[in-house]
Amino acid sequence: MSQPTFETLLYDVEDGIATITLNRPERMNAFTARMMKDLIEVFDVTDADDDVKVVIVTGAGRAFCAGADLGAGGATFDRTSPQALEREEGKVGDIYRDGGGRCTLRMYDSLKPIIAAVNGAAVGVGVTMQLPMDIRLASTDAKFGFVFARRGINPEAASSWFLPRLVGMQTALEWCYTGRVFGAQEALDRGLVRSLHAPEDLLPAARALAREIADNSAPVSVALTRQLLWRMAGADHPMEAHKADSRAIQARGAAADAKEGVTSFLEKRSPVYPDKVSTDLPDIWPAWGSHPFS
Amino acid sequence: MSQPTFETLLYDVEDGIATITLNRPERMNAFTARMMKDLIEVFDVTDADDDVKVVIVTGAGRAFCAGADLGAGGATFDRTSPQALEREEGKVGDIYRDGGGRCTLRMYDSLKPIIAAVNGAAVGVGVTMQLPMDIRLASTDAKFGFVFARRGINPEAASSWFLPRLVGMQTALEWCYTGRVFGAQEALDRGLVRSLHAPEDLLPAARALAREIADNSAPVSVALTRQLLWRMAGADHPMEAHKADSRAIQARGAAADAKEGVTSFLEKRSPVYPDKVSTDLPDIWPAWGSHPFS
Amino acid sequence: MSQPTFETLLYDVEDGIATITLNRPERMNAFTARMMKDLIEVFDVTDADDDVKVVIVTGAGRAFCAGADLGAGGATFDRTSPQALEREEGKVGDIYRDGGGRCTLRMYDSLKPIIAAVNGAAVGVGVTMQLPMDIRLASTDAKFGFVFARRGINPEAASSWFLPRLVGMQTALEWCYTGRVFGAQEALDRGLVRSLHAPEDLLPAARALAREIADNSAPVSVALTRQLLWRMAGADHPMEAHKADSRAIQARGAAADAKEGVTSFLEKRSPVYPDKVSTDLPDIWPAWGSHPFS
Repeated sequence: MSQPTFETLLYDVEDGIATITLNRPERMNAFTARMMKDLIEVFDVTDADDDVKVVIVTGAGRAFCAGADLGAGGATFDRTSPQALEREEGKVGDIYRDGGGRCTLRMYDSLKPIIAAVNGAAVGVGVTMQLPMDIRLASTDAKFGFVFARRGINPEAASSWFLPRLVGMQTALEWCYTGRVFGAQEALDRGLVRSLHAPEDLLPAARALAREIADNSAPVSVALTRQLLWRMAGADHPMEAHKADSRAIQARGAAADAKEGVTSFLEKRSPVYPDKVSTDLPDIWPAWGSHPFS
Repeated sequence: MSQPTFETLLYDVEDGIATITLNRPERMNAFTARMMKDLIEVFDVTDADDDVKVVIVTGAGRAFCAGADLGAGGATFDRTSPQALEREEGKVGDIYRDGGGRCTLRMYDSLKPIIAAVNGAAVGVGVTMQLPMDIRLASTDAKFGFVFARRGINPEAASSWFLPRLVGMQTALEWCYTGRVFGAQEALDRGLVRSLHAPEDLLPAARALAREIADNSAPVSVALTRQLLWRMAGADHPMEAHKADSRAIQARGAAADAKEGVTSFLEKRSPVYPDKVSTDLPDIWPAWGSHPFS
Repeated sequence: MSQPTFETLLYDVEDGIATITLNRPERMNAFTARMMKDLIEVFDVTDADDDVKVVIVTGAGRAFCAGADLGAGGATFDRTSPQALEREEGKVGDIYRDGGGRCTLRMYDSLKPIIAAVNGAAVGVGVTMQLPMDIRLASTDAKFGFVFARRGINPEAASSWFLPRLVGMQTALEWCYTGRVFGAQEALDRGLVRSLHAPEDLLPAARALAREIADNSAPVSVALTRQLLWRMAGADHPMEAHKADSRAIQARGAAADAKEGVTSFLEKRSPVYPDKVSTDLPDIWPAWGSHPFS
């Protein structure tokens, strides 16, 4: 099947694994309104394609993403400037929706696991866009910075919700107050990234992890797992999880995947799951997805 | 006082410490509908008995709990199968309540601290049942696995709410996506368990920790502590905690336990707390316990 | 400008950094109703003073704060005792508001970063008052204890909300159940404090961190960062963050600070931010601050 193309991204699917490569290497993959739209669109593609079991995101060239493209200088973050016009479609009432947040909320809703392979500098929206990805592997060359306070603006892309849930309040506040750029080892020590790898080993390690998921786990189970864990991270009471997972177990326990999962285990063989995310995902949340911007 | 007996559990109270032992060693303590009912019932017993200050949960034989009993094969998780009939009592409207979740929500409401002494394999509901326990000590022989996606089902027992609060989103997602079985050291490194012990030292270590609590801390204070911390883990704003702990301090600051706690400290002697959980626990939450399944 | 004075605190502002010193060294800086009022008032002062970029809190003498002053013995926590009269102003309806919680909720609303320099013993409210501070540096001589259950009362100062978000549920529960006093190394290992320092290096280290923030980051950005991260720690869904940070970016992206932040970066020079917290903080939350005690 021919794959869609994007102005700012490379997109490739091979053996169940989609690889999205931020592709403006001459600008260190700096983030633009076009990249925002491409990122939102590409996760619609991965969600809809049953051949995609896991998604990897990485950067072309030396950087992962150097943050907002500062080509407009001091007017970069001015939503009233002419360059803001191309962001108009994101406006709701009087408020422009932050482009980074439109991306991270799209990723939050993803039905496929997202693995970040952080190959180099990841600064500003270059790191906040990683926070709703599920697992971050980094090159020993990677650098990170929540530099917003040094640019006179504020953490965006809903990072104030995501970051403390990954690294705790104390580390999140220090990184955001100082705006300091820090290395891969600190990112590992504080829990932002899961593991470090030599540059040439990074993509192979990300692919091996993706492979482990794709080869062993039922895609519908993985999609439910993703939605359950992310949504319950903010829920007040475990009863919310119990309501949702009871519905899920009832729907999926009688499905072909559960029969195959248990029998393949008892027969000590690799599973071949018949069900598909596009057709077999149960609607377990009465208000699934009902978080309007207002 | 004679103690209740259970088909699937051993139950023993000695010197303020209740020990609950999952007791189907010939099936690696695999979880059944009967074990679910026994677990719910035993925490009613420990809550009601003022002689119980702390609860320890462990497994008989080599395993802690190997997960759902797969004796029914591919129909194990099918709520429409004949074996599901014994779960009927858990049905609300059209939905069967997940049995693991009924257990973990009961433990969440426990008035006594719960220490898990994980003696061996803890897989599926064998590990998710531990998440609302307060402190997990593990044998170096223990193994863990959130294997749901490999069985074609999804994380249950409200684990999507509990697990990220213990180990962070990144680790929780990786364990649940891969369904991989991992060892005690990884469980320690990622924060799932509090400490590792040689097999023969595990129960003594759990008892020493239980002893420290039972000998020094006022039981009503401990019950309030348990409810405050678990309930506030999901609360939106610290004002919710302030409302609850203001009520608690007002009620308990004037009580006999507070007088004994302060005077025994000033007199450098061991405390003897007069108050009891069964009669002296203040009702500090206007809506305490009001989380209906619906 | 002449600075305000307090009965129980020393207060000093130098080169953008306010230092608050708990100052009852003859009582190990034990907490009283007077200290509660002084602490609430001093954060009104730091919020209102644009010359204050960062706040440091430390203790005079050997201790940071030994907890509630137990001078009243067994009646210490009795809100119906004569000494409780001076707390009357905190009463709402039939309920006395906990004094520790009135302090920590005031700190939660602070517009300036708060760094704790924990110079010695920090027990009871002496440690719970630190939890809404942003970053904790500790002397190797520091000691900590959540001793409430050993005094027959319960965790206060909204610590049930704050503590698990810093150290996870498992550690929070163990510390509060046992009431054990533990050393600086354990506080570091479990994530309560950010770094340890020799006693003579503690304040210099706290000042160096404060300096890094004050010299590089825009004060309005820092205030927004503080409010975004703390408020979103309890929010159900990242959409709440996206709403708030979209409003903030829209307001601040067009402001003088953003122009200065980007141009100083591109020109590789130190920034001079023109905007002030007292006049330029946007009102990004429709219901900002609406958490009444009831």
